[in-house]
Amino acid sequence: MTKNSSNVMALAPNTSNKRETVCIFGTGDFGRALGYKMIQAGYPVVFGSRSTQTSSLIPKDAEVLSHAEAAQKAAIIIIAIQRQHYNFLTPLAEILRGKVLVDISNNLKINQYPESNAEYLAQLVPGAKVVKAFNTVSAWALQSGTLDASRQVFVCGDDVEAKQMVMDIVRALGLTPLDQGSLLAAQEIENYPLQLFPMWKFPILLSLGLVTFFFFYCLTRDVIYPYVIENKDFSFFIAISIPNRICPILALTLLALVYLPGILAAIIQLYRGTKYRRFPDWLDKWMLCRKQLGLVALAFASLHVLYTLVIPIRSFVRWRISSQIVSQASFALNNKTEPLDNTNAWLSDSYLALGILGFFLFVLLGITSLPSVSNNVNWREFRFVQSKLGYLTLILCTAHTLVYGGKWFLSPSSYRWYLPSAYMLSLVFPCIVLVVKSVLIFPCLDKPLTRIRQGWERNPRYSE
Amino acid sequence: MTKNSSNVMALAPNTSNKRETVCIFGTGDFGRALGYKMIQAGYPVVFGSRSTQTSSLIPKDAEVLSHAEAAQKAAIIIIAIQRQHYNFLTPLAEILRGKVLVDISNNLKINQYPESNAEYLAQLVPGAKVVKAFNTVSAWALQSGTLDASRQVFVCGDDVEAKQMVMDIVRALGLTPLDQGSLLAAQEIENYPLQLFPMWKFPILLSLGLVTFFFFYCLTRDVIYPYVIENKDFSFFIAISIPNRICPILALTLLALVYLPGILAAIIQLYRGTKYRRFPDWLDKWMLCRKQLGLVALAFASLHVLYTLVIPIRSFVRWRISSQIVSQASFALNNKTEPLDNTNAWLSDSYLALGILGFFLFVLLGITSLPSVSNNVNWREFRFVQSKLGYLTLILCTAHTLVYGGKWFLSPSSYRWYLPSAYMLSLVFPCIVLVVKSVLIFPCLDKPLTRIRQGWERNPRYSE
Amino acid sequence: MTKNSSNVMALAPNTSNKRETVCIFGTGDFGRALGYKMIQAGYPVVFGSRSTQTSSLIPKDAEVLSHAEAAQKAAIIIIAIQRQHYNFLTPLAEILRGKVLVDISNNLKINQYPESNAEYLAQLVPGAKVVKAFNTVSAWALQSGTLDASRQVFVCGDDVEAKQMVMDIVRALGLTPLDQGSLLAAQEIENYPLQLFPMWKFPILLSLGLVTFFFFYCLTRDVIYPYVIENKDFSFFIAISIPNRICPILALTLLALVYLPGILAAIIQLYRGTKYRRFPDWLDKWMLCRKQLGLVALAFASLHVLYTLVIPIRSFVRWRISSQIVSQASFALNNKTEPLDNTNAWLSDSYLALGILGFFLFVLLGITSLPSVSNNVNWREFRFVQSKLGYLTLILCTAHTLVYGGKWFLSPSSYRWYLPSAYMLSLVFPCIVLVVKSVLIFPCLDKPLTRIRQGWERNPRYSE
Repeated sequence: MTKNSSNVMALAPNTSNKRETVCIFGTGDFGRALGYKMIQAGYPVVFGSRSTQTSSLIPKDAEVLSHAEAAQKAAIIIIAIQRQHYNFLTPLAEILRGKVLVDISNNLKINQYPESNAEYLAQLVPGAKVVKAFNTVSAWALQSGTLDASRQVFVCGDDVEAKQMVMDIVRALGLTPLDQGSLLAAQEIENYPLQLFPMWKFPILLSLGLVTFFFFYCLTRDVIYPYVIENKDFSFFIAISIPNRICPILALTLLALVYLPGILAAIIQLYRGTKYRRFPDWLDKWMLCRKQLGLVALAFASLHVLYTLVIPIRSFVRWRISSQIVSQASFALNNKTEPLDNTNAWLSDSYLALGILGFFLFVLLGITSLPSVSNNVNWREFRFVQSKLGYLTLILCTAHTLVYGGKWFLSPSSYRWYLPSAYMLSLVFPCIVLVVKSVLIFPCLDKPLTRIRQGWERNPRYSE
Repeated sequence: MTKNSSNVMALAPNTSNKRETVCIFGTGDFGRALGYKMIQAGYPVVFGSRSTQTSSLIPKDAEVLSHAEAAQKAAIIIIAIQRQHYNFLTPLAEILRGKVLVDISNNLKINQYPESNAEYLAQLVPGAKVVKAFNTVSAWALQSGTLDASRQVFVCGDDVEAKQMVMDIVRALGLTPLDQGSLLAAQEIENYPLQLFPMWKFPILLSLGLVTFFFFYCLTRDVIYPYVIENKDFSFFIAISIPNRICPILALTLLALVYLPGILAAIIQLYRGTKYRRFPDWLDKWMLCRKQLGLVALAFASLHVLYTLVIPIRSFVRWRISSQIVSQASFALNNKTEPLDNTNAWLSDSYLALGILGFFLFVLLGITSLPSVSNNVNWREFRFVQSKLGYLTLILCTAHTLVYGGKWFLSPSSYRWYLPSAYMLSLVFPCIVLVVKSVLIFPCLDKPLTRIRQGWERNPRYSE
Repeated sequence: MTKNSSNVMALAPNTSNKRETVCIFGTGDFGRALGYKMIQAGYPVVFGSRSTQTSSLIPKDAEVLSHAEAAQKAAIIIIAIQRQHYNFLTPLAEILRGKVLVDISNNLKINQYPESNAEYLAQLVPGAKVVKAFNTVSAWALQSGTLDASRQVFVCGDDVEAKQMVMDIVRALGLTPLDQGSLLAAQEIENYPLQLFPMWKFPILLSLGLVTFFFFYCLTRDVIYPYVIENKDFSFFIAISIPNRICPILALTLLALVYLPGILAAIIQLYRGTKYRRFPDWLDKWMLCRKQLGLVALAFASLHVLYTLVIPIRSFVRWRISSQIVSQASFALNNKTEPLDNTNAWLSDSYLALGILGFFLFVLLGITSLPSVSNNVNWREFRFVQSKLGYLTLILCTAHTLVYGGKWFLSPSSYRWYLPSAYMLSLVFPCIVLVVKSVLIFPCLDKPLTRIRQGWERNPRYSE
């Protein structure tokens, strides 16, 4: 299972098979962990330290020397020291000239310093070739060998050969190097391990907000209203009934919000008559998190499916059905069994069928967004799935909600304290999206839009 | 999330860090989009154009020159022009000698021309090194940065160094180059973005055909027959009941069709006594789309599960159950409650259990076919899952269907207008497959088959 | 779809485009299959054989020569011969000097010989450069082109250039070479295709044992007990009711076993006051198969969900409900309909809700463990999902089980033959894990633990 490391080969034609000495500055936890790993991989390792006293923690086969001595023994020096202490390197500048310095440091906060640690290091020791690497690897994972998540080592640096040497080491340790370009990328690489799902923040905050709003909305309508008006205690609705109202509302709303920015973009482009002006910032950001919005919507849809399928097992539902039947049975003595209401059967079956098909397509969309699947799909196929199937999903789910309302849709009796049923609110965005989209499909709008997207401009502005 | 680009490094040991000028012929939409991206990545860009008038659309930092002047400034020239206009390059042949020409063109139809655009370009400018690249990337995606699907850039060309230079640019733009070999591969690369799920065409058309057939079959038996004979309106069966008959039938039939070609191949090999003769063409094609057939079958199985789980929520089912109970209750007054029918309980529970286990294994097979999972599995493990678990799935699903029929299986009363129940038709292929397979397992057939597959021949035909 | 091969390029700057002759020793099945493929890819192929008689099986365009003659024609010689016959190469040592020998052999058992075949070959022909490759590819798959699982070719060898030449051939055949380092890796590479899910063995054996135990436990309580005491035949419980008890028990127990080793490790580290001593072997192994344990637990949880959702369709359940209602209806004549039991409604709804949420998070954990997903996640995100969400899942599932017991939890009436309800046994491990974990969170324990994990030692043991 752990074979998919190093899928790139060592190449420098003059590479001999004997591995070159690596120097590590700093005998802290991460420095030692790296040292162990490198010795295992066959590299001679020498530590540079203030005190050359050998600690039992330092791997046996490693030498511990002063910084200057250690640096002279190796072409590659790994700086396993915190940024605050980098200035001790200034006096060593002459010894470090031409050497490869590997910056492995991390910060505590995103964009903590104006320049990245690696760039700062390059300024301090201008004669050395600085390469950023290893900062995304955890010392603990390195030592225990349980590198499930982070086999990838992002590498960047201005000197191609230096970068190449570092990437060879990365591969030798059983990790996968990813070349991120010049040292400018160091800032991003240093921020990377501090991120916690940055693209998911907006979709999750948005849905938390919506969940809170709809929770109190449904609580008012379904628990407080019957308690106040009819003095009935339906507080247990909080466990399943209310979540099963909130989930489909959020799924549908968020799904509509996936397609809304595309429609807004089309309108803006039509209005401006060109595609060569930037969208407003909020629209750009919104478009970039559409995948995450869609996946959150899928999560709510899945919960809705589970909550719905569980209905007939609920003790409340069993009680309600059995008391209905019992009261019916009392009448049935007079031999009047209720006939099948055909309209009801149609409505109930078709809203279930629409929901099933919609959910099925939704799951398909979700599977296609898995990285390993979307990598095997070309642009035309990706667009087909995400656009055509996506709109079909939206149509099916909107129809599911409309038919669910059935005969009572918009009927006055469904208002409680002037509040409409919650599901009606979920129809607002999908209906807007579908109506506007169906307008945009008309040739009189679709043709100019296509031409604009191919680069045509209504008012071309030649600078000359 | 967008880190998994460029996992291969720049290598040419003499690469300096200053990026070399790139020339782009053509100021169309894709040429400009590429130009922008390259300038962002630090490449000096010069456009070659008929009119050297600078348009505001062209990136500010780019020069616009005549074709000849532009070509002289760069070692790499990207031809962002349609194939029909390639002949303007002939007079430039002398200037283009030794340059790297990157063909990025696409066609409108698969195999539109006898030779690929890139090969045509190589014929027109024989002194240049032609590399095919970038044709799978969308201009729009390049500009907007939303390259979800198409980070992969297929590259091919006859000159290794030229290809290498282009791949370096690809990586610098944050894309992943995939070396596809010599320029012969250009035809395939040019067809790639025009394809729309080519491997899925047959399985989807086949299942559409089967769906149509079984829909009318079930409509006749379940809606028209009761309407004609008993004057009952069950038209709402179209929403759920009939789909829930069609889906399992298709799932089982398609699953059997996944294993049928393997069995036919075995019979052909046994009959011929050798594995060194090609199978008939239809069998080859059938074997290549087995994975897709299986996934379509899984889709139908999933729909069947959803349709089935939804049964107790259906208004029709609730009505039927409650009227059954009511009529039972009228009798119960005489203190005669119906006892539990143990056979029924056994049949009902075991067909459900078989279905659950079959579906569970089916989903497992589906997960194993995800590219990222199957890459982490060796040949023996893959065969184990796809063959052993696959047959177990087929056996469980067939048993599920057989037990579903239960006591009424093949009973005359289940025929309507001489039509057997639909599920019986679904048993034809699985039973054939299972019976033949169980015959092929006998040592008297299995041993010679194994030897044939290891290369043994019944009638070896030495040419000398 | 089959585009994701060779994502690394040929690089040696002096590579000409004409492909070099490859020699294959041995005209067996795999040798011929490789030969075919190479000729297709444009390589001139020459076979070395004892008898130079051309067989019709050998590709037409290939020459067949004696071993010595064939070896002289090529720089690369593929040894398609079984290890037992390697000694015929000793007399050829002089001719093979400096050549690249590719060992493609496999063994029948794991670690069959003390040294790997490739190392044995290197000892026999010390002057040659031995590279291990191609052993993970199936001859049959190579010939039929259906290389779904095994596009990956593991390559190892001591000579970098030789390895590079072999990897170029691998890429030319449309396969993906993975550099595994020096020839020492050959042992592992030779074992790889013989493995059958090695990491899964322990979790699957463990769960088989637990399934057997709980099956007989439940059989005793739910089938034998009512048969002996009340003379009721509930044998059909074997199909659904008993599996639906076993599955949740196993899911919960295995999930707890995923988190137990982490807790044991923390206790050991706290006790020892250092992280620099190895854990006991069993703990190491246990920690390495946590992912597999979790996925098996997820499989059981999924089955539990399916078995539960199917409940209302079961014929037994329908009979039970209808006889309850009928008997209720007889009383209802006296106009006494049973009121809703609010506590029951709360208990039933909340255990269902807890189960749904727990299962939902569990599936999320499963999706995150897909290789393509976990590759796109950084270390912090991975830890967040696997640790925070994992514990939340465990808490929800434990609460689900506790509430399921409800009012009868630990009540004496639920004991049959002194055996407690099966679900109570499933609570043992989760409760231990949750209690100990909640103790470890206290600052007085958490702080020293964090420091120990950062490398601090209670009794530092300097060697000097």
